[in-house]
Amino acid sequence: MFLRNSWYVAAWDRELGRTPLARTILSEPVVLYRTAGGAPVALEDRCCHRSLPLSMGRIEGDELRCGYHGLKFDASGACVEIPGQPSIPPQARVRSYPVLERYRWIWIWMGDPARADPDLVPSWWWADHPEWAFTRPDMIHVKCNYQLVSDNVLDVTHLAYVHAGSIGTAAIAEFPAATEREDRLVRLKRWIVDRPAPPMYQAAGGFSGNVDRGQIVEHVPPCFSVNFAICQDTGSGAPQGVKRGRRIDLMALSAPTPETGRTTHYFFGFVRNFKLGDAETETMFEEGMVRVFNEDVAVLEAQQRMLETKPGAPKIDIRVDAAPLAARRMLAAMIAAENSPAAATAA
Amino acid sequence: MFLRNSWYVAAWDRELGRTPLARTILSEPVVLYRTAGGAPVALEDRCCHRSLPLSMGRIEGDELRCGYHGLKFDASGACVEIPGQPSIPPQARVRSYPVLERYRWIWIWMGDPARADPDLVPSWWWADHPEWAFTRPDMIHVKCNYQLVSDNVLDVTHLAYVHAGSIGTAAIAEFPAATEREDRLVRLKRWIVDRPAPPMYQAAGGFSGNVDRGQIVEHVPPCFSVNFAICQDTGSGAPQGVKRGRRIDLMALSAPTPETGRTTHYFFGFVRNFKLGDAETETMFEEGMVRVFNEDVAVLEAQQRMLETKPGAPKIDIRVDAAPLAARRMLAAMIAAENSPAAATAA
Amino acid sequence: MFLRNSWYVAAWDRELGRTPLARTILSEPVVLYRTAGGAPVALEDRCCHRSLPLSMGRIEGDELRCGYHGLKFDASGACVEIPGQPSIPPQARVRSYPVLERYRWIWIWMGDPARADPDLVPSWWWADHPEWAFTRPDMIHVKCNYQLVSDNVLDVTHLAYVHAGSIGTAAIAEFPAATEREDRLVRLKRWIVDRPAPPMYQAAGGFSGNVDRGQIVEHVPPCFSVNFAICQDTGSGAPQGVKRGRRIDLMALSAPTPETGRTTHYFFGFVRNFKLGDAETETMFEEGMVRVFNEDVAVLEAQQRMLETKPGAPKIDIRVDAAPLAARRMLAAMIAAENSPAAATAA
Ligand code: FES
Ligand code: FES
Ligand code: FES
Repeated sequence: MFLRNSWYVAAWDRELGRTPLARTILSEPVVLYRTAGGAPVALEDRCCHRSLPLSMGRIEGDELRCGYHGLKFDASGACVEIPGQPSIPPQARVRSYPVLERYRWIWIWMGDPARADPDLVPSWWWADHPEWAFTRPDMIHVKCNYQLVSDNVLDVTHLAYVHAGSIGTAAIAEFPAATEREDRLVRLKRWIVDRPAPPMYQAAGGFSGNVDRGQIVEHVPPCFSVNFAICQDTGSGAPQGVKRGRRIDLMALSAPTPETGRTTHYFFGFVRNFKLGDAETETMFEEGMVRVFNEDVAVLEAQQRMLETKPGAPKIDIRVDAAPLAARRMLAAMIAAENSPAAATAA
Repeated sequence: MFLRNSWYVAAWDRELGRTPLARTILSEPVVLYRTAGGAPVALEDRCCHRSLPLSMGRIEGDELRCGYHGLKFDASGACVEIPGQPSIPPQARVRSYPVLERYRWIWIWMGDPARADPDLVPSWWWADHPEWAFTRPDMIHVKCNYQLVSDNVLDVTHLAYVHAGSIGTAAIAEFPAATEREDRLVRLKRWIVDRPAPPMYQAAGGFSGNVDRGQIVEHVPPCFSVNFAICQDTGSGAPQGVKRGRRIDLMALSAPTPETGRTTHYFFGFVRNFKLGDAETETMFEEGMVRVFNEDVAVLEAQQRMLETKPGAPKIDIRVDAAPLAARRMLAAMIAAENSPAAATAA
Repeated sequence: MFLRNSWYVAAWDRELGRTPLARTILSEPVVLYRTAGGAPVALEDRCCHRSLPLSMGRIEGDELRCGYHGLKFDASGACVEIPGQPSIPPQARVRSYPVLERYRWIWIWMGDPARADPDLVPSWWWADHPEWAFTRPDMIHVKCNYQLVSDNVLDVTHLAYVHAGSIGTAAIAEFPAATEREDRLVRLKRWIVDRPAPPMYQAAGGFSGNVDRGQIVEHVPPCFSVNFAICQDTGSGAPQGVKRGRRIDLMALSAPTPETGRTTHYFFGFVRNFKLGDAETETMFEEGMVRVFNEDVAVLEAQQRMLETKPGAPKIDIRVDAAPLAARRMLAAMIAAENSPAAATAA
């Protein structure tokens, strides 16, 4: 079961144009395109006539014509032409989804259109800000449930094991993390104090001595996480909120969109406030960090396969599960609320 | 559920020889071969001993020997030898199917053998007639239910959308089609009057001006269709049945045999009465028309996938569905009759 | 349903080292490795924390550390370290399986560890004896139930059909085989007397005239078979147990381990007492006999596919089924006993 009344990332802005894009979201086939004016449109990707995916059709002006018998649909999903017959029955329509474009992503609202409030899109303003660079790698298709991705993002322990060769350092396990819960947010906070910077950060920030390293993850259900990585000369007050001396800020934005219950469109990007416009740094994020994400993909897909092989097998929880478990409970409560009789009455 | 008491095309004549051919028909594994005298034989492709496909065995004279423990079966399906034992129990036999060879196709009867009347094979005499050329492309395996193929053949609207680049013309939608029902036949009839011929027909018939173009489909359940394409100089009376001046007749014969409920062996061929023996024309049918059929395959397979993804989803019917719906109703009635208690009593 | 209280071959000795090996046995994911001292270890291949296969982790000394959040397990399956927390709950453990190394194979006990008696490993001493050569080809993964493999091994009739081109001869069918049943053993015995040796044996034993050829299969449930092939100059008393003149002994050892109910890890090897150290002979077994086994694989996989296509279809038994049927009955009785309430009480 998914949380329906939420925005999800449907595509990168660059993926949408005047050719229909087919994408399954929350197990629903969706077709995305842009009108002549460039506005994004999302419709049910199934012709109401004989079920051909509308994504096999062609765009005509602001409308989409089915590639089989030529029914034409406007951006609201209404059928506006049936070849060979003058009248159009009112049931001749497909579902249309609210969409908006923000931070270079196309966001889609999968629930009740009346509740599609643009303010509910997570506030990731750095992605659009001139003082920050935004690295926008292609989405990765991952064969796992999207919550496994959020679990992964909300856990920094695994850096030492999954990413031992890249960004992980053995020091991580020594510093306990604190989990904070807010209304619709789970925060995981850890400061690694007075330790050498890992190689990738050393190269990025030019640190000579030890650093204080903040690892803060803010997770907003159903699936939005920001991993803040802060690296500042040790002793200069970073854990207390002081910005001083050599410092770099790097945020990994994660938006794993459920394709189905067992597959995910993993959208992500990196924003940083250092070495803007530096080609080498850009390459490191475009390629090096994507390699890191792919280390996670191998783990996530193996985990999904094993969960499917042994569905009800017992499991234990450990300390580092506090934040992922808090996020899962928060989401479960939201889904339950959405499906309660009270919600149905209110709607 | 399939109509069992019917002929189906099992193979091209050229596919059958002295090596067993395995083919699943109506979800039943069948093995086909020819006796020493050349007669086609069709048996259940599952040894009654330990289930090895008999198609993995070898032909000996008129008989087929299993490739595992050597049981030998004659063309009636009776086991005639069990290595290592003198007596053969009466249950040692596999099912045999009535088969016949006509129009270069091997036809198989999938129901009660006592009712396998050769006169029930559709009358497609042009395929054997010296005044007609018969182009016989390889069967296409299509991942869709066979009724989707018949729907497609019984609809000429889609030419404008699916085949826009090849045989379709925008004019099609302007001329309404009439649907006629007979006892075991559905006919769809449309005349496109006083219009330019599409490129492929122009090349074939050498028309200089506008033409009258007849598109007539005759469908016989469960799955036999002939698309008659008639092209004649406009004003010369073609729609009234007058044959005069420049004229070409082209028939597309369709026999989509169900492999399973979701896959089809699509047998088809083209007969024509013009440019017999002309290599260029032959190539056009052998290659150009097969390309056209493959445009349909992409649509049919996408449609099947979507029907499986959203099985009970609502759909609307439009005018051009009259003929396909009539065919579906006719077949459904025949299948119901075949499975009624009365039918069981009569049998 | 499998017989659980039994040894099964899990791997060749050479497959195990200091890198974890993942292998599914009796539908259970297992991870195998060697301790620093070389002792084989087999654990459940699913971390009790978040289900990552432990085979994706790394060996540290005698222990295995999970590649996700770093839980460390010892050879008994107990968790001995949880990064980031001092205490380890008692449920933090994975199953460990008794294992032993014998005849170059790693054997695993899939049932109650208390009953894992090393004496229950079949006695295949030739495989370790200096007067015998042991050819040890790689395991073949076969997409069929393991009992189909045993059926195949317990039937020598099929040599004439499946292996007609290699080791089969038409003479086989003429000589009846006798089936003997002992407590936990089925024996199939056949002597082909005064016939030419098949090409492969001729080359191996240098026979000039006719031979007596013994084909004796001893099968021990659940899945262990030895095919004894004896070839001796005819008239010298081989069927009566006399060893004289030119004679070769060759045993094919078969240990098809169920991966799942429909797939098998087929371990096998050949022992012989002739031409030890002869490179050409070794090649013949290493390559020629593996080709023969692969002829069976094609048959076995086709049989499995057909059994899945037509699950309940009727079948007949013939004379040569006596031994395979005896083996199946013996195994079924053992599985039933293992699952009876009495067995549960005794355990
Ligand atoms: S399927 Fe779309 S118009 Fe017919
Ligand atoms: S399976 Fe055909 S003879 Fe045994
Ligand atoms: S899954 Fe193994 S330690 Fe978490």
